[in-house]
Amino acid sequence: MRIGVPKERLERERRVAIVPDVVRRLRAAEHEVVVEAGAGERANVADDAFVAAGAEVGDPWACEVVAKVAPPLDDEVARLRSDTILVGFLNPLGNPAGLEAIAATGATALAMEKIPRISRAQSMDALSSQATVSGYRAVLIASTELPRFFPMFMTAAGTVPPAQVLVLGAGVAGLQAIATARRLGAVVTGFDIRSAVKEQIQSLGAKFFEVEGLGDAEAAGGYARELTPEEQQLQRDALSVQMGKSDVIVTTALVPGRPAPKLIPASAVEGMKAGSVIVDLAAEAGGNCELTRPGETFVTDGGVKIIGPLNLPSEMAEHASSLYARNILSLVELGFDPSDEVVSGATVTRDGKVV
Amino acid sequence: MRIGVPKERLERERRVAIVPDVVRRLRAAEHEVVVEAGAGERANVADDAFVAAGAEVGDPWACEVVAKVAPPLDDEVARLRSDTILVGFLNPLGNPAGLEAIAATGATALAMEKIPRISRAQSMDALSSQATVSGYRAVLIASTELPRFFPMFMTAAGTVPPAQVLVLGAGVAGLQAIATARRLGAVVTGFDIRSAVKEQIQSLGAKFFEVEGLGDAEAAGGYARELTPEEQQLQRDALSVQMGKSDVIVTTALVPGRPAPKLIPASAVEGMKAGSVIVDLAAEAGGNCELTRPGETFVTDGGVKIIGPLNLPSEMAEHASSLYARNILSLVELGFDPSDEVVSGATVTRDGKVV
Repeated sequence: MRIGVPKERLERERRVAIVPDVVRRLRAAEHEVVVEAGAGERANVADDAFVAAGAEVGDPWACEVVAKVAPPLDDEVARLRSDTILVGFLNPLGNPAGLEAIAATGATALAMEKIPRISRAQSMDALSSQATVSGYRAVLIASTELPRFFPMFMTAAGTVPPAQVLVLGAGVAGLQAIATARRLGAVVTGFDIRSAVKEQIQSLGAKFFEVEGLGDAEAAGGYARELTPEEQQLQRDALSVQMGKSDVIVTTALVPGRPAPKLIPASAVEGMKAGSVIVDLAAEAGGNCELTRPGETFVTDGGVKIIGPLNLPSEMAEHASSLYARNILSLVELGFDPSDEVVSGATVTRDGKVV
Repeated sequence: MRIGVPKERLERERRVAIVPDVVRRLRAAEHEVVVEAGAGERANVADDAFVAAGAEVGDPWACEVVAKVAPPLDDEVARLRSDTILVGFLNPLGNPAGLEAIAATGATALAMEKIPRISRAQSMDALSSQATVSGYRAVLIASTELPRFFPMFMTAAGTVPPAQVLVLGAGVAGLQAIATARRLGAVVTGFDIRSAVKEQIQSLGAKFFEVEGLGDAEAAGGYARELTPEEQQLQRDALSVQMGKSDVIVTTALVPGRPAPKLIPASAVEGMKAGSVIVDLAAEAGGNCELTRPGETFVTDGGVKIIGPLNLPSEMAEHASSLYARNILSLVELGFDPSDEVVSGATVTRDGKVV
């Protein structure tokens, strides 16, 4: 197959869907790769590096498969043909009009968000690979913004205690945040409404925060289901106490297609020490903290810094692209057989219709 | 004694010389502490916290001892009396006119930079305590700026290699940078012209980079002596190769009272991969990299980001102040007996003269 790689056009999208290492592997499997000039520039991949790996620089939209990161813009949709296979983060739950526009071209579109969470598809799970980047970076940002050390320091002049880090939501991003905060020497507490992750949290050297009276809340597909209002209140009260002791909170709780649950009320932020930091990875879905301003960093009157980043993987574009490109590679290797469970699960438009 | 704590006035100085914990210990030893209103504000210490610890809010300049972080400004020098004991980072080698002005008031001034590097004075070694902060933060900044992971990642889609970090200069800041980069999972190489630190570097899990033909270069007082031009060239050539393989370089080589040695020539930066990061902790003394712009961050045409921070401890003001305050506490506990080796070593003005 010929696989086209457009240059991403959104200001805050630095990633590229394919990297030279993956070009080599596609070429070894007899595929061709056509890269738009400058496609890898913001991910530190020069056109020369693509060419050296066996890609050509040209028009990616003439290819059978077009591999993107972000959803296509209007002029990109106009380039789709009825026999194009488009793959990318297409935001199927948040952008129905965009999907309609893609469907109208007759193109087949696969949304990376909809890759089924089954073992066989793990290597294509781009939500997970990018969440790894987000969780890692969230902690780096927190550690850089915190006016305190993460690790304990025992110096000639005395001891500095380690930072207390609370991670809300122990999916891929949350577990990676826990692992990174532990690497840096913090004392970490992890919380998730799915008690099944307790052992995972503990295996990373963190404490599991348990809320009494809350049942299990794992829904189909490995995601958390939405809590009832009563459960939410119970959770908030118990967590507020823990939040008040925390130097850093990283929050990662997302419910697909719904606004993010408000786990951190304004009152809990008031209870935190001046200088403490909240990194809200759910900012894109409105935030897990009531005060989060998506895309902004600000300091409350009480001196708490709240950071609501919108696209952390893009900020670490080189390795985020590298992981994403391997997810795309696995999908291409699988082929695009519509009867395959993974392909059909990820397909969002086909034969002129949103499916 | 009465110990006064002025509010620091420089824009980029967020630290405060005494923190509430240290106030408690000074009070327990029958000292009094007078804090200027708002002195701890930018280090996340409210006046209330000082008062709760037993300090009063008032005029710090009327006290016997005045504890500062940065050198006094002109109007602060005017507040010194002939019986004042001033302690702080007074920049004795870089600011002779400032010392003359202090001397003219008749005040006794102790520069924290001149605390002798002997075992007994370790708990007062503020250069070391603040260098710990700098080394730690330098790596956090590098990890945040790098478009790649520090740790190796083994994911369902494949493996990402760990970052290669090179640390130049293995004093306190360099060793802390090595330790922090190791914590984050990078492969670290440490370099110092003093071969005595080889074991320290290795004990942190890093490789020691050896330049053949270079003798030992440790001078009196635990600092490095300046290299001869021939030695410098030999060093540059050997290091250039290593630099080209590095994702991150943290450089910390300082020679007291002299411009920082240029360890990273422009040609070596050209040899680095796009996206790589240099954090130059010697920026204040002109930088270890030829291209460093003190106080600025910029990206070269080759895509290498060069960061020349000027006061990293101030950016982590709460714990930096905490460590500094304990250094001051140890000095106060020692007393200000001019015949003591530590006190006489640190004294830079006395009886109207620069000494």
